[in-house]
Amino acid sequence: MKIAIIGTGLIGGSIALKLKNNQLATHIIGVENNAIHAREALELKVVDEIKSLDEAIRESELIFLAIPVEAASKLILEILNKLNKQVLIDVGSTKMNICETVKDNKNRGRFVASHPMWGTEFSGPAAATSAAFAGNAVVICDKENSDVDALAMAEKIYKSLGMHIIYMDAQSHDIHAAYVSHISHITSFALANTVLEKEREESAIFDMASGGFESTVRLAKSNPEMWVPIFKQNRDNVLDVLNEHISQLKKFKSCLEKENYTYLKELIDHSNKIKKILK
Amino acid sequence: MKIAIIGTGLIGGSIALKLKNNQLATHIIGVENNAIHAREALELKVVDEIKSLDEAIRESELIFLAIPVEAASKLILEILNKLNKQVLIDVGSTKMNICETVKDNKNRGRFVASHPMWGTEFSGPAAATSAAFAGNAVVICDKENSDVDALAMAEKIYKSLGMHIIYMDAQSHDIHAAYVSHISHITSFALANTVLEKEREESAIFDMASGGFESTVRLAKSNPEMWVPIFKQNRDNVLDVLNEHISQLKKFKSCLEKENYTYLKELIDHSNKIKKILK
Repeated sequence: MKIAIIGTGLIGGSIALKLKNNQLATHIIGVENNAIHAREALELKVVDEIKSLDEAIRESELIFLAIPVEAASKLILEILNKLNKQVLIDVGSTKMNICETVKDNKNRGRFVASHPMWGTEFSGPAAATSAAFAGNAVVICDKENSDVDALAMAEKIYKSLGMHIIYMDAQSHDIHAAYVSHISHITSFALANTVLEKEREESAIFDMASGGFESTVRLAKSNPEMWVPIFKQNRDNVLDVLNEHISQLKKFKSCLEKENYTYLKELIDHSNKIKKILK
Repeated sequence: MKIAIIGTGLIGGSIALKLKNNQLATHIIGVENNAIHAREALELKVVDEIKSLDEAIRESELIFLAIPVEAASKLILEILNKLNKQVLIDVGSTKMNICETVKDNKNRGRFVASHPMWGTEFSGPAAATSAAFAGNAVVICDKENSDVDALAMAEKIYKSLGMHIIYMDAQSHDIHAAYVSHISHITSFALANTVLEKEREESAIFDMASGGFESTVRLAKSNPEMWVPIFKQNRDNVLDVLNEHISQLKKFKSCLEKENYTYLKELIDHSNKIKKILK
């Protein structure tokens, strides 16, 4: 099967590598606006060739849209309008905006809205890896609006990547994504800024950083070109979770201020319940 | 060399395993108040035998104190008063309190105050691992207050664990530990509570959790018996960093409320500077 990947970065590039490995893709056409990324994607054999958007759409059976969510919402109608029988799958971290954008399009049925719940803090074709996706969930949204064959294609592809599929409406997705993904990025960005703020006064401190710190601050390396549009599109949900998070931090602050170590222990005991939920 | 390990948990147990592996220890005596942990430490061959505190002190050349910091501060004078020529090393995550406690003791010179910057979210002898410590830093505090031979012993031991040594005064240690370690734990505990608060309404959400979420919330599995005393002993520094962190989060909140995505991008760009500092 000929597959087009629009956006050859971390997610698009990893999909390309894996579908080449598992032989579902016979040929991968990359579409890439960034000239450096286009060259990297070719050099690293993430894609077989780079073509224009129109050529890629025309020559493929399956098209992945893997660019930042705001750019995706802007481009999707142009792509849909050019489709014949091809299937179009997006992989963005927000789903309401794009589903709303396409809802009245004549080719809506060819589109499957999805969000593979996998990523790293790195970006670009060089970050693409065939170790991606396996064992994680992919959310498919509003599946009743996709044609039966388009949905079946998306399911087949994601299963071949080793993912398990969760179905939900776009609104539910965006609420859940705010608290299992988007808030983690905000806390990590803010934690990095907290420590960088202090480091002005205190150099050499980073000699001391160990696994715990690296773990909580790792996501702060993530690309703003990807994340600002996500926070913008999912603003209300992210604000809701962020307000809750600040309230939770203020409970810790209050315990310390009042030297209420009994309640501090209760807060930590409660947070330990996360053990039951995460492996 | 005969070595006593007071507290056979994650840190004490890992030290025991590694010093047995690298043959610096010929025999390890464990001291363990928790009967279940004592049995586990023997069964898992973390220690060779379990003895009373007095026996362990009498029969060892080197003693590690690896219990929660408040208990360590309470026990240390009793141990110091029973020392002859033995060396005593503590491994607690706070250093001011214990250094202040021992400062006028006649045997202060036999004590080396240290903090190996390594840990996991797990606890007890079963969490002990010979994969511990290597490549990380250990802080040795107020080294001028330790006898030359005691300090040399501590340096030899930590180098044999594969750690690089940083020297600083206890006060500087506690400030730095607040922001490269203690604050990460508070953000993680609070993030777990944030999501658990939401999960009351929304079940099945955890299907969606991926590596990013697990990374930022991992430390929330940590043991309150260890962490409450750390926050108590390092209260002022932790409060200082926590206040800064809440301010940083409020900047993100304000950007979203005002839809100021230019400043949001600047905040993320700034946090990306952590890339230069962490590998």
